[in-house]
Amino acid sequence: MPVKAGIVITGNEVLNSTIRDENGPWLSKELSDLGVDVDSKIVVPDELEAIESALGYLAARGVDLIVTTGGLGPTADDKTAEAVAGFAHLDLRVDRAMEEKIGAILKRYASARGVDLPGDGLNEANRKQALVPEGATPLDPIGTAPGLVVPVASGPLVIVLPGPPRELRPMWEDAKRARPFVDLIARATPLSTFTVRMFGTPESELALGLREIEQSGLDISDLSVTTCLRKGELEIDVRYRDPQREVAEGLREALASRFPKTTFSTDGTGIDEIVAGLLEGRRLAVAESCSAGLLAARIASRPGSSEYFSGGVVSYSNRSKEDLLEVPADLIEREGAVSPAVAEAMARGAIARFEADTSVAITGVAGPGGGTEEKPVGFVCFHAIGTGIGELDLARTIPGDRNDIRERSALVAMHMLRRLLS
Amino acid sequence: MPVKAGIVITGNEVLNSTIRDENGPWLSKELSDLGVDVDSKIVVPDELEAIESALGYLAARGVDLIVTTGGLGPTADDKTAEAVAGFAHLDLRVDRAMEEKIGAILKRYASARGVDLPGDGLNEANRKQALVPEGATPLDPIGTAPGLVVPVASGPLVIVLPGPPRELRPMWEDAKRARPFVDLIARATPLSTFTVRMFGTPESELALGLREIEQSGLDISDLSVTTCLRKGELEIDVRYRDPQREVAEGLREALASRFPKTTFSTDGTGIDEIVAGLLEGRRLAVAESCSAGLLAARIASRPGSSEYFSGGVVSYSNRSKEDLLEVPADLIEREGAVSPAVAEAMARGAIARFEADTSVAITGVAGPGGGTEEKPVGFVCFHAIGTGIGELDLARTIPGDRNDIRERSALVAMHMLRRLLS
Repeated sequence: MPVKAGIVITGNEVLNSTIRDENGPWLSKELSDLGVDVDSKIVVPDELEAIESALGYLAARGVDLIVTTGGLGPTADDKTAEAVAGFAHLDLRVDRAMEEKIGAILKRYASARGVDLPGDGLNEANRKQALVPEGATPLDPIGTAPGLVVPVASGPLVIVLPGPPRELRPMWEDAKRARPFVDLIARATPLSTFTVRMFGTPESELALGLREIEQSGLDISDLSVTTCLRKGELEIDVRYRDPQREVAEGLREALASRFPKTTFSTDGTGIDEIVAGLLEGRRLAVAESCSAGLLAARIASRPGSSEYFSGGVVSYSNRSKEDLLEVPADLIEREGAVSPAVAEAMARGAIARFEADTSVAITGVAGPGGGTEEKPVGFVCFHAIGTGIGELDLARTIPGDRNDIRERSALVAMHMLRRLLS
Repeated sequence: MPVKAGIVITGNEVLNSTIRDENGPWLSKELSDLGVDVDSKIVVPDELEAIESALGYLAARGVDLIVTTGGLGPTADDKTAEAVAGFAHLDLRVDRAMEEKIGAILKRYASARGVDLPGDGLNEANRKQALVPEGATPLDPIGTAPGLVVPVASGPLVIVLPGPPRELRPMWEDAKRARPFVDLIARATPLSTFTVRMFGTPESELALGLREIEQSGLDISDLSVTTCLRKGELEIDVRYRDPQREVAEGLREALASRFPKTTFSTDGTGIDEIVAGLLEGRRLAVAESCSAGLLAARIASRPGSSEYFSGGVVSYSNRSKEDLLEVPADLIEREGAVSPAVAEAMARGAIARFEADTSVAITGVAGPGGGTEEKPVGFVCFHAIGTGIGELDLARTIPGDRNDIRERSALVAMHMLRRLLS
């Protein structure tokens, strides 16, 4: 039987988007890896009644497990433990052992700073942190706030964790060892997952393809298939439980054979990693105009890229195309700085100046100004050279704003390198 | 009377944390700027019943406004319009005008790719996107999916937006002009806001400074002051309602005078814009090793940057430092590729090769390998030249991982340009 979970994130600063919620995505992934389906995630303000109502909502959704984050500190707006006790109809009691642990931690902090504390190290605010709902198991503090594992009679198990990610993550490991959690997880069937990646297939064509695959007799209704357009690539995420393995594998093959030109990965490997593998033993140099360093930065973001990456020229001015990439001035004059001929000359210049054997060049109109009828904003020319392999060129009009066009240009160049080298 | 809002984010890929939710934080900020309090945010899977139940929960919380994101595409798992219609007890009808608009958009896309479409440009999947709940106002597509403004009888106003941020953001501007939204917002008391930015002040010193400002007699307890360490800069966001204007202005001045060296902006202007202004009338070239194009890409991300930006060299190999930036081979041999002397030579080479009058060079150990005791991972040397102004140099060890170090290097270079030119 699938185990369903909900996540409650407390904190005005997350709601106001002053800070980014790092915990929700992290917990989703952890739960998913355990085979737990995440049903919903709710972000609520630091208000007793808002937290209680979120817990009630998730219980009504029929979840087996609720994980809360935040609201465990000593200040007045930290109310999670109280809200969970209220939701579960449990009394809060001071846990003496926890009180002592918190006192000892605060004393250590204070002596490191030369601050005076009351005899037992606790003031009233900190004493609040030792309150534990009856029947719950406290989790030792990583910072100063303890967490809680709270079994709820005929309701979901509630795991209460602190907000700071560096406290939450180690405490989550402790929570996973708590008896009620162990028992719950034993019921979950772990999910297997794979990702297929495509470049150049529009989402609507994929939707059509998926429907045709189903009509051809593959019943994928028990798989979870999500498709997501991510920065110009289509990502198809397939999750399944073991009895569906054969169907899932059938889908993976059907996608690859239906979209053979655009499917570049059936095991989730990303384009950057694929290109890095193909560049082994070669020397790459790049020449960029409109993308202005984005391609170079992308290639160099991989550790060890200096093995195959010599560098690049950002030739933003015509003059720099001539001086640094040996593009003939009269070629720019005749064809325009954004032209297949200039892209080719830039790629050749990069090979020559960096003594490389592989190069790719990008020149385009990033906008918002500078477009013409013949070469509108988004018009970009590419040229790739692999000595001993061959050459590729491409000219296309990329939609979007200035930065979309620049980033997409770098991505197209990565895919050209893949096509050239594989 | 305060206006309360809820946000519903749909998408398995957000729940599974396959993609990061960019829309929730962005919408929170937009709503907050309009004076709307965000009560809760819910992330739900692409399931009709889950979306409906989230809408019901927010309505029960008493919100005046619900904004949904995602689930407007052509595929079977796009169900938001149907869920909103179900929640509001409204029938869905095909909007003929919208159908035509979507058809025209798809035809344009298809002809750019040389693909055949049905006569009216629509297949069944896309036709679904033209379904509009009765009484709702459709919002024109930015991509192919239209949005919706749905007034609900004795319930909250629902605004339905697409998932991709570059579609959502422009469509939000349209939504804000829709009559029911205008009427609702008229009830909210707008917040005024300003942002102070610092570079080089640690968060703990700022906290101390704020406490001292309060102790000196400025009662800031009615302001909302949030501080956020954002990519190496400290951002202090101050929000207030009109009666607190004088106090807010007092705080702005107190911050700038207490942190004169590190406060580079008291009106929210970012470093990129400041440096762009300072570069007017000059010609900039950059030379990058470890940052490998990030600085060039950052400078070129501003429209119109070709006015002052000539380009740059990504000299990832020693050889390219010699060949493209005229760094003497024996200097690299003697001082090491990561050294103040090589940074200086790179900056000089950039001036010479690009015939520029302003340059900045970065060379450092990005890691994870390559660190030594003397030059550990994160050790980065900078040199900036402004002909007729002077020169600056800097060597420091930047904490973090490979990409933190590379990005922080580009940021430090921007701040060096500011110091050099102002």
